[in-house]
Amino acid sequence: MTATPLTVPDLGALAPLDVAARVARLQEALPGAGVEALLVTNLTNIRYLTGFTGSAALLLVAPGGLTFVTDGRYGQQAHDQLAAVGVSAAIEVSSDAQRQAVAGAVAAAGVTRLGLEADAVTWAAQRTYDTTWFPEVDLVPTTGLVGALRVAKDDGELARIAAACAVADVALAEVRPRLADGPTEDEFGQELDLAMRRHGADDVSFETIVASGPNGAKPHHRPGHRRIAEGDLVVVDFGALVDGYHSDMTRTVAVGALSPTQQRMYDVVLEAQAAGVAAVAEGVAARDVDRACRAVIDAAGWGHAFLHGTGHGVGLDIHEDPRVGQASTAMLASRSVVTVEPGVYLPEHGGVRIEDTVVVTPDGCRPITLTHKSPAV
Amino acid sequence: MTATPLTVPDLGALAPLDVAARVARLQEALPGAGVEALLVTNLTNIRYLTGFTGSAALLLVAPGGLTFVTDGRYGQQAHDQLAAVGVSAAIEVSSDAQRQAVAGAVAAAGVTRLGLEADAVTWAAQRTYDTTWFPEVDLVPTTGLVGALRVAKDDGELARIAAACAVADVALAEVRPRLADGPTEDEFGQELDLAMRRHGADDVSFETIVASGPNGAKPHHRPGHRRIAEGDLVVVDFGALVDGYHSDMTRTVAVGALSPTQQRMYDVVLEAQAAGVAAVAEGVAARDVDRACRAVIDAAGWGHAFLHGTGHGVGLDIHEDPRVGQASTAMLASRSVVTVEPGVYLPEHGGVRIEDTVVVTPDGCRPITLTHKSPAV
Repeated sequence: MTATPLTVPDLGALAPLDVAARVARLQEALPGAGVEALLVTNLTNIRYLTGFTGSAALLLVAPGGLTFVTDGRYGQQAHDQLAAVGVSAAIEVSSDAQRQAVAGAVAAAGVTRLGLEADAVTWAAQRTYDTTWFPEVDLVPTTGLVGALRVAKDDGELARIAAACAVADVALAEVRPRLADGPTEDEFGQELDLAMRRHGADDVSFETIVASGPNGAKPHHRPGHRRIAEGDLVVVDFGALVDGYHSDMTRTVAVGALSPTQQRMYDVVLEAQAAGVAAVAEGVAARDVDRACRAVIDAAGWGHAFLHGTGHGVGLDIHEDPRVGQASTAMLASRSVVTVEPGVYLPEHGGVRIEDTVVVTPDGCRPITLTHKSPAV
Repeated sequence: MTATPLTVPDLGALAPLDVAARVARLQEALPGAGVEALLVTNLTNIRYLTGFTGSAALLLVAPGGLTFVTDGRYGQQAHDQLAAVGVSAAIEVSSDAQRQAVAGAVAAAGVTRLGLEADAVTWAAQRTYDTTWFPEVDLVPTTGLVGALRVAKDDGELARIAAACAVADVALAEVRPRLADGPTEDEFGQELDLAMRRHGADDVSFETIVASGPNGAKPHHRPGHRRIAEGDLVVVDFGALVDGYHSDMTRTVAVGALSPTQQRMYDVVLEAQAAGVAAVAEGVAARDVDRACRAVIDAAGWGHAFLHGTGHGVGLDIHEDPRVGQASTAMLASRSVVTVEPGVYLPEHGGVRIEDTVVVTPDGCRPITLTHKSPAV
């Protein structure tokens, strides 16, 4: 069905990530948030800023430089990973010395207003910081400071997301014929997941959705024991993780012949998805992409059956900024990566969703999900 | 090796959970925390109190009764699941009406001090509650109110945890001979995971650890491409998830003959683990269980190589109260479930860890991990 065979790039030779440049951009953004320093607690943001992939860390970004705190399990890893990307930080691993290292750096830099990531710090932690770590400092709730940097991807990030998309494309092409053999949803999902790993995925990007027949009408259905049968629409929503970066795609496969209503559902969603992709470009309001999809589905009389937003950003998180929905206030930025995934869900007929991941460009977008859109097995 | 064959109970006929009794016990605990009502935001705690398994919810426990809020995806599920366990609540799914439903119930009950779960609410959310939802109410940070209830398990919970242990036991017995064939760590891990699912696990309890040879010296090693070979100690740490409840076990398998040092490591850890299990009983300080394990390993001269605490509670979370370590202040309660898992890690020789899950009883404990402890494949 595809004009050119789908292939996975050499995952050992992807463009490098430009990690070292990121902290300076964050520091430039701090005055606008009314703070002199930021205590980064979101682990994905810490990975973005330093390359560190462990499961426990704090990163203080202060005028005097970076202070990085982790625990004894990750001491060597922290030194190695920060050095590998050229990020320089004072690293402290002793649990007894962590507070002193961070509070000392805050005091040494003369910080009077310290930002916390309000969405990534518990109230309990904020209280401890306020009363014990930084009693002399004003703590300021901030939102999205690192997230805003993460929206526009560098070449290394785009290479990883595209590679993760390619792994998903190749895996689906490989296992798709199995749908004709009548597997259960979870059997097919497991085969797809194994194929992604075989083609180089470090993990799946999220729990694979295989929603067949009536289950397809539930957008968030988890694969179950239902056996896929003739006449089913099968919604397959999945992605691969490559070096920390996610991909996200959906195809709807028709097992056997489509009923007239199913055919119309498919055609409407296909047209809506194409309209959404066509609307994507730098400077476009994200909600206008949603509107473009919704207009096609509304015109078909199924607006009530498009149960979710049109898409979302993809990167180190499977769902990140910008959101692409009716309530979104984001403008699309060049080098950002978003999904376009309209759907129609009718309990009597099943569900159809079609989703590509695309890279926003000045003139439009470049789809990096390359699987064809024929509904045939 | 086992005297009696390991079997998995009928997972469809486990003792029922006594969910409906739990809210009343929570309400009894509220005055001691200085609050009249509690807004429960930890989803596992919400599951514990109501039976609800979805991924979005808030539960207000107030003198006037329960108010349960979720989103449109979960409306029917919430009604069904709460009704199934006999929990009565006002359920609100409209996103526009959620705040009014909860704030209205707080006002109607005359609540002046409302507890939040300080470890399970972000600072951003706390600020929104403070300024927008409950401007007239004092918000009080609370810790562990529901967690304390969860420590002692009811019969249905014990049945599920024991079943999850049995699934893990049976799965290991089934795939263990494969270790002699030289699989890679991740191949063996995947076979073990598939075997658990085949025997009824809803999922794995956590990412399975298969740490062979030198990798065994890293307690948190993730399975990699290393091929398991003659002379390896292989640490296998894994568990099954059954109806929301976890199990956790570790066995260390010797592929081929043990070196004298490896044999001594094994014997010391085996003795330490037995000493820990023997120390468990209602009313015993959790740290004394840790001390019992540590004394054996210290006496062997390897105290420095026992890199972690002795264990933890297991239930709806894989790690929950009580912690069993040197710094623990918990006293063991009857009907609680804990792990006992000492280990010795020597980079030149590998790692040995042996872990059982046990149920605390008035006189001691009842191990529910039943796999034998011979190191042979």
